[in-house]
Amino acid sequence: MKLADLTRQAGEWLRGAGPMEDVVISCRARLARNLAGVPFLSRCTTDQKQDVANRLRGEILQANIAPTVLYVDVAAAGALDRQLLVERHLISREHATADHPRGVAIATGETLAVMINEEDHLRMQAFRSGLQMSEALAEATHLDDRLEERLDFAFHSRYGYLTACPTNVGTGLRVSAMLHLPALKMSSQIEKVLRAAKDLHLEVRGLYGEGTEALGDFFQVSNQTTLGVSEEQIVEDFAGELIPKFVEYERQARDSLRQRQGPAIEDKVQRSLAILRSARLMSSQETTFLLSLLRLGVTLGLISDVDIKTVNEIFLLSQPAHLQKVLKRELNGLVRAEARATYIRKRLGANQDPPDR
Amino acid sequence: MKLADLTRQAGEWLRGAGPMEDVVISCRARLARNLAGVPFLSRCTTDQKQDVANRLRGEILQANIAPTVLYVDVAAAGALDRQLLVERHLISREHATADHPRGVAIATGETLAVMINEEDHLRMQAFRSGLQMSEALAEATHLDDRLEERLDFAFHSRYGYLTACPTNVGTGLRVSAMLHLPALKMSSQIEKVLRAAKDLHLEVRGLYGEGTEALGDFFQVSNQTTLGVSEEQIVEDFAGELIPKFVEYERQARDSLRQRQGPAIEDKVQRSLAILRSARLMSSQETTFLLSLLRLGVTLGLISDVDIKTVNEIFLLSQPAHLQKVLKRELNGLVRAEARATYIRKRLGANQDPPDR
Repeated sequence: MKLADLTRQAGEWLRGAGPMEDVVISCRARLARNLAGVPFLSRCTTDQKQDVANRLRGEILQANIAPTVLYVDVAAAGALDRQLLVERHLISREHATADHPRGVAIATGETLAVMINEEDHLRMQAFRSGLQMSEALAEATHLDDRLEERLDFAFHSRYGYLTACPTNVGTGLRVSAMLHLPALKMSSQIEKVLRAAKDLHLEVRGLYGEGTEALGDFFQVSNQTTLGVSEEQIVEDFAGELIPKFVEYERQARDSLRQRQGPAIEDKVQRSLAILRSARLMSSQETTFLLSLLRLGVTLGLISDVDIKTVNEIFLLSQPAHLQKVLKRELNGLVRAEARATYIRKRLGANQDPPDR
Repeated sequence: MKLADLTRQAGEWLRGAGPMEDVVISCRARLARNLAGVPFLSRCTTDQKQDVANRLRGEILQANIAPTVLYVDVAAAGALDRQLLVERHLISREHATADHPRGVAIATGETLAVMINEEDHLRMQAFRSGLQMSEALAEATHLDDRLEERLDFAFHSRYGYLTACPTNVGTGLRVSAMLHLPALKMSSQIEKVLRAAKDLHLEVRGLYGEGTEALGDFFQVSNQTTLGVSEEQIVEDFAGELIPKFVEYERQARDSLRQRQGPAIEDKVQRSLAILRSARLMSSQETTFLLSLLRLGVTLGLISDVDIKTVNEIFLLSQPAHLQKVLKRELNGLVRAEARATYIRKRLGANQDPPDR
């Protein structure tokens, strides 16, 4: 498996299937671990960081964590490849732009990705499309067990797993879900919902995690508490109660919009599809905006000749690094906007070229 | 011929054919006349106004000015009918909203319309699509001659024809052309061109004449001088020199846009057509905006399955009064926007209904 192979399709997190897929795009369970007897990264020398990277790379590859594993030496990778991994949510922005020895191991199907030397020595991430938090946790835990057979993790009998940032101490578990909340936003209820999330000790971020603003109608919601609660309890609270509440609110808002503003919603949705199918120049930002409305239209049954999977794939593959990988050339400015529009028209089955030129 | 028959098609001024049709939508020659021995309208009693209206109506109908003539008693007409006449440029806004006895005689094909008791007792208007100013003047003059055989017009041996407003004294002739200048506007040259027009003693107005702002990319340009110059000289200056200059500038701007910003223009044009073909709600204003871009696309050869005639007809028939006449019911707010969108989709051969509802 090569990195370029990834661009052929969307990974697990955009597969467009799974429980509550109308609102929950995907979920993720992430475990933070550090090697016992080795300083946290912030206190490591470069040599130590290199040792950690080499050692963890070897152990992970030998542990047979998946039928096929792609290891990317992130420090040695080009900017475009690193951007590609960020767009696929396999590594964080910080991991992409750091300047020390580091890497990521990616399992076939992208249900699993292990970042080495991100904030902690190890960040094991398991992804599922829709809301399948228990399955994601099970996969992350299974990986954790496999690696713990070979490695000694920093652990404190009272606090639990020790991590570089105190917010991760304890289980080291962070669970998150990517939500699509267009109706709550359209009906101006989103602020209220986000405030409630904060009161429930949830963190809400943008499409690409920490430090990114919520882009359009997509929100990444995650737990803040990792200490003093079991992994199972965290998942139960998050996936059994909190996220289903968001889903319920969003569904109610969609029903209400459909009933009270049917023609206006249909207008927005049909215009979005028409623009995607005919524009000759398209920015990333406008793509996100229009695909959000198209996704809403598909879930509301207003659009029948496009499915969620296609929407998700366009969403991913029209992003800058993906677009350039797919087209196998570097693209800038206007040319990229033109290539994106052409790609989207093709994917949505529209006429490629204007008639009679 | 009934008023409702008018809505079946666009009149002469939107026929979409004629010299320089890519820029000049239509032209108009208008002669102002007043009856000798009768006060100007501002000094008439209501009875006198009624007498003028009755007398002129009778004379015009007996003069056989065209094979078929429709006379509309504007004072007695409903608001929707009056609005319809304004939308077709057959009467002015002022004529539509005045509150004294008045009317309009309209010839078949709408090449000729005579307003009675607008600002002057008589306002004879001849229309042609494209730039056919001499033909329009010839028709107006022919009508003037026919009526002058039967009526005595207020005339001063030194000044010429006398009119209510001094700006019309002399020939009483006002010539005007409706121009479509999207490229000059898009390339930010329009202000410069409009300033030059002012220096050349031309008046520039919006789509519906005096007192209306230029709406979108459509500009009505007319002469300001009527005294001390012959009718022929006015037409020669206007149609032989001034308007062709506008046409030249606009064509240059279009060439330049196409060469330097090809993808951006094609993007705008294709999006406009796509939105017109798929929107479920459409305002008058947005229709004008999108049709302007679509018209530009047709003249640039970027769109081949829509012709100028169709663009012009939609332009006219999607306006509020026309829409209500065509659909034979009163429509307000959202319902009208919905009906307009449906009408436009139908005219542009798009799918009428969304699938699977």
